[in-house]
Amino acid sequence: MSNPSLLILAGDGIGPEVMNEVKRIITWYGDKRDMPFDVTEDLVGGCAYDKHGTPLHDDTMAKAQEVDAVLLGAVGGPKYDDLDFSVKPERGLLRLRKEMDLFSNLRPAQCFDALADFSSLKRDIVAGLDIMIVRELTSGVYFGEPRGIHVEGNERVGVNTQRYTESEIARVARSAFELARRRNNKVCSMEKANVMESGVLWRQVVTEIHEKEYSDVQLSHMYADNGAMQLVRNPKQFDVIVTDNLFGDLLSDAAAMLTGSLGMLPSASLGLPMANGRPKALYEPVHGSAPDITGQGKANPIACILSFAMALRYSFDAGAEADRLEAAVEKVLADGARTADLLGPEGGSPISTTEMGDAILAAL
Amino acid sequence: MSNPSLLILAGDGIGPEVMNEVKRIITWYGDKRDMPFDVTEDLVGGCAYDKHGTPLHDDTMAKAQEVDAVLLGAVGGPKYDDLDFSVKPERGLLRLRKEMDLFSNLRPAQCFDALADFSSLKRDIVAGLDIMIVRELTSGVYFGEPRGIHVEGNERVGVNTQRYTESEIARVARSAFELARRRNNKVCSMEKANVMESGVLWRQVVTEIHEKEYSDVQLSHMYADNGAMQLVRNPKQFDVIVTDNLFGDLLSDAAAMLTGSLGMLPSASLGLPMANGRPKALYEPVHGSAPDITGQGKANPIACILSFAMALRYSFDAGAEADRLEAAVEKVLADGARTADLLGPEGGSPISTTEMGDAILAAL
Ligand SMILES: CC(C)[C@H](C(=O)O)[C@@H](O)C(=O)O
Ligand SMILES: CC(C)[C@H](C(=O)O)[C@@H](O)C(=O)O
Repeated sequence: MSNPSLLILAGDGIGPEVMNEVKRIITWYGDKRDMPFDVTEDLVGGCAYDKHGTPLHDDTMAKAQEVDAVLLGAVGGPKYDDLDFSVKPERGLLRLRKEMDLFSNLRPAQCFDALADFSSLKRDIVAGLDIMIVRELTSGVYFGEPRGIHVEGNERVGVNTQRYTESEIARVARSAFELARRRNNKVCSMEKANVMESGVLWRQVVTEIHEKEYSDVQLSHMYADNGAMQLVRNPKQFDVIVTDNLFGDLLSDAAAMLTGSLGMLPSASLGLPMANGRPKALYEPVHGSAPDITGQGKANPIACILSFAMALRYSFDAGAEADRLEAAVEKVLADGARTADLLGPEGGSPISTTEMGDAILAAL
Repeated sequence: MSNPSLLILAGDGIGPEVMNEVKRIITWYGDKRDMPFDVTEDLVGGCAYDKHGTPLHDDTMAKAQEVDAVLLGAVGGPKYDDLDFSVKPERGLLRLRKEMDLFSNLRPAQCFDALADFSSLKRDIVAGLDIMIVRELTSGVYFGEPRGIHVEGNERVGVNTQRYTESEIARVARSAFELARRRNNKVCSMEKANVMESGVLWRQVVTEIHEKEYSDVQLSHMYADNGAMQLVRNPKQFDVIVTDNLFGDLLSDAAAMLTGSLGMLPSASLGLPMANGRPKALYEPVHGSAPDITGQGKANPIACILSFAMALRYSFDAGAEADRLEAAVEKVLADGARTADLLGPEGGSPISTTEMGDAILAAL
């Protein structure tokens, strides 16, 4: 059997810097744990646009469809802000999500003990926080038609369409219920069923799937505006949250910020199983391309490294190896290793991206 | 000249309880400040449905169009959860907003000094917080067509439409810039222009209005997901935030919760000027109908009272009287008056809704 294959799309800004540390960890797994990967690299986002005039070349798209998992860094930057909508760096990422049909986006919001004081929230509100947001990623207003800007009478009109089918809701709901069974068995579904019919359907379908297939899991429903409030008020009331693409975008970012350590948070985007049984999958940090610190060796590689840990767990059935990597990260944090973003108001002297990589490799 | 007219729609749940205290304050202004109002009362929400089979009777709608300002309590409750979408209590409120064309929803998120420790955020992050969210309230995905649930092939599909015209964006942008001029002269506009064309148009129009009419105001743009993060990370970076109906719903609720005192926060929904120069206007607390504490005398009337203060300021050009009422509220809080929702973990003995009303009247 051939080695499992990875496509690395480091992207823009700090993407390549943090991905460098992941590459060293991949090499370590090949050398020390007898888990060799076949790694290919390619372009996505602004750098792909610079070279090909498109944020994702068709060849890259084809490669992404063939590998066992894609690892992505980050896309975008001020240089590309004025590009036409159709070739913005983000379109590359959105095309990957859509064409790989990565409907289930897992965004853990976990508060690391060593960093609990770093949150803008009080310690007791966030210490020990461990929630999982499951965001639908291939439908809703991100992809619905009709869309665009047109002229009506003598003015411009901007239109987007929020559209969900029953089966799109059902499959992401199942993925949330499955996760909940392996966690604390609680799912909270969020929408605006009081205002939007797409939310009414969302609530109905989630309820039906629950009754028929997952009645052992505790299910609740919440309006998304109240969800945003409750995340701020008392995030520990949640275990798994399932929500649509746009609400998931806002709510998962708010949840990420609660932990005070955006530079720490990974994500997995999963699709249907391939012929070899592995799901289509893309792993990426929650943080962006951080143009303000690009090229300075300041970026925190942990979110990207923990995204690789999620790959070990969800693509390669190597939960114990994922645990090992996560434990190494916890250890270096407990030992006091801090990149610049992890220094509180008290200050201290930060280590570089590479030094953080060194420390994690040493802890492994 | 006749007295200014008010239509009181106390609504459901704790609505009537908190509105009772407002009525006493209205009476006080008539008696003690020579500002008599003509007050009419009517039904909205679940109680209107119970009586008329609709959450807003046409007669009530007609009255709302004629008065100088509408004061609303709250709508909704578990009793109405299974009603058809078209007659849910919320539809009454949405109809008022739409037919009165109340496009500019002002939601101050202010942290009261006496309550700063009550937030789930650290004191220094929220103490002194004073931001104003201006939410577009009559368009976007709340009202766009087509909408509904239909069957395609053998499955249901839920659809809503996000739709904004240039003039809809322009008028709410103007209202935000005007407010900023009377505050700290800074506006941050939030959308998802990286993903939604309606967001691209939003950003363009806000930028154009700024260049042509308000270049003295400082303008920035932020993606709404980042906005959700920044509100949690460092809310004091903002002065005025302007955003669309749906983002405004989530972001203003998150912002409200930052202050730790949801029972304290008022809102104003303003439309075009009427013949007498006053804007069409509706004032309501940000909190909901709170079915869990209804009828127990526990509700905090302050949000509803401060909504009346906003009416004094924005409808009746009585800024000094609004200041007086707000100062009375601050005084009773500083003196330690606390309804149940305002008691921290240390506890203490709460006063009732009426006792809070008494205290504020005494302070006036
Ligand atoms: C970059 C952008 C297109 C993307 C999104 O809106 O989904 C990002 O915010 C995210 O959450 O992954
Ligand atoms: C009650 C509901 C229809 C309403 C909304 O979604 O606008 C509420 O959440 C609000 O923010 O005023």
